[in-house]
Amino acid sequence: MTKSISENITWHPGHVNRAERELLLGQKACCIWLTGLSACGKSTIAMALEQVLVKRGHAAYVLDGDNIRHGLNKNLGFSPEDRAENIRRISEVAKLFVDAGLIVITSFISPYRADRDQARSLFAPGEFIEVFVDAPIDVCAQRDPKGLYQKALRGEIKSFTGVSPDAPYEAPLSPELHLRTDVQDAASCVSTILHYLEERGYFLREAKSGT
Amino acid sequence: MTKSISENITWHPGHVNRAERELLLGQKACCIWLTGLSACGKSTIAMALEQVLVKRGHAAYVLDGDNIRHGLNKNLGFSPEDRAENIRRISEVAKLFVDAGLIVITSFISPYRADRDQARSLFAPGEFIEVFVDAPIDVCAQRDPKGLYQKALRGEIKSFTGVSPDAPYEAPLSPELHLRTDVQDAASCVSTILHYLEERGYFLREAKSGT
Repeated sequence: MTKSISENITWHPGHVNRAERELLLGQKACCIWLTGLSACGKSTIAMALEQVLVKRGHAAYVLDGDNIRHGLNKNLGFSPEDRAENIRRISEVAKLFVDAGLIVITSFISPYRADRDQARSLFAPGEFIEVFVDAPIDVCAQRDPKGLYQKALRGEIKSFTGVSPDAPYEAPLSPELHLRTDVQDAASCVSTILHYLEERGYFLREAKSGT
Repeated sequence: MTKSISENITWHPGHVNRAERELLLGQKACCIWLTGLSACGKSTIAMALEQVLVKRGHAAYVLDGDNIRHGLNKNLGFSPEDRAENIRRISEVAKLFVDAGLIVITSFISPYRADRDQARSLFAPGEFIEVFVDAPIDVCAQRDPKGLYQKALRGEIKSFTGVSPDAPYEAPLSPELHLRTDVQDAASCVSTILHYLEERGYFLREAKSGT
């Protein structure tokens, strides 16, 4: 064993290229950017999609509040500048994951068109898939799993997207996908995204058998 | 085809767990943290290691100045605070990559023990492998591929690690690996790291045949 890895180590200058990574991972890397109001269903769809992709043998990873706000972006607040920097850093990290060959799924409200367009501008054509996770605000407010809408309506949360006058949600004008979570369940939403990826050739080998 | 992916989409709450990722990628994820003076050989080792790992069928990715300073950390300068924030963000991104199941290789001078220890503290035991890429400063200054030592000695670069009095290099006290690039060539250094990973069970399946 020792001998086999010591021998014949050769390399070319620079990073491993994308084609080598695609061959290894069996997929075209991309960023699936979920955007929508609080409680619209982004997180459920992101987790479900990640799990289904991994079960099918694909390297996929979700960036969300859980792993970003407590780590990389824990030194950011909720001022307009900090919100922009939050999305900027997330988009740069997503770009690194795509460069590494992964399918990365981002799950953030990301309410401003300018921020999302800035994110898109980091990627090559076909690498950025904007998914509008759409539900009417009264449906989201009724779900309200964390009681955030209630708090916002009572004025206990400032600048709450879609509720506070200073925090509008700017719906995507031409997203790659538009999901309606008031009339589609999560499984159907995930299926829609999978079809999109499959039809456009993001999967370079067959799904693992039995999954 | 359409039917096969629409059916039977089920999931559990939360992220894909580490065991599922290890099974998929055939490796235990870790961060290989290279530290050392400018021109000590970090970048060459990082690139070569990445290429050998990918050839052997492993998902590996290098974080370095090329993909970090022009992207995620382009809004940081070289003040002490910004240097600390630079390493903090890099370590948080490395943690995300490890969480995603990858072998991530970081290639930064990272001169301060406190910053490297802070990085280490983000990881579980066995996930952080500090590699001291060691060469005497006169050897590094003689190599000087970018002419940076010359500029620093002429005073054209401030706070240049190892040259400027205000920018010391704090050598690791107990790194997992200590490579001596004045007496070992890059292939030998890469081999040392591969043996370390192999002996400690980071590779969960055989290397691809022929590589």
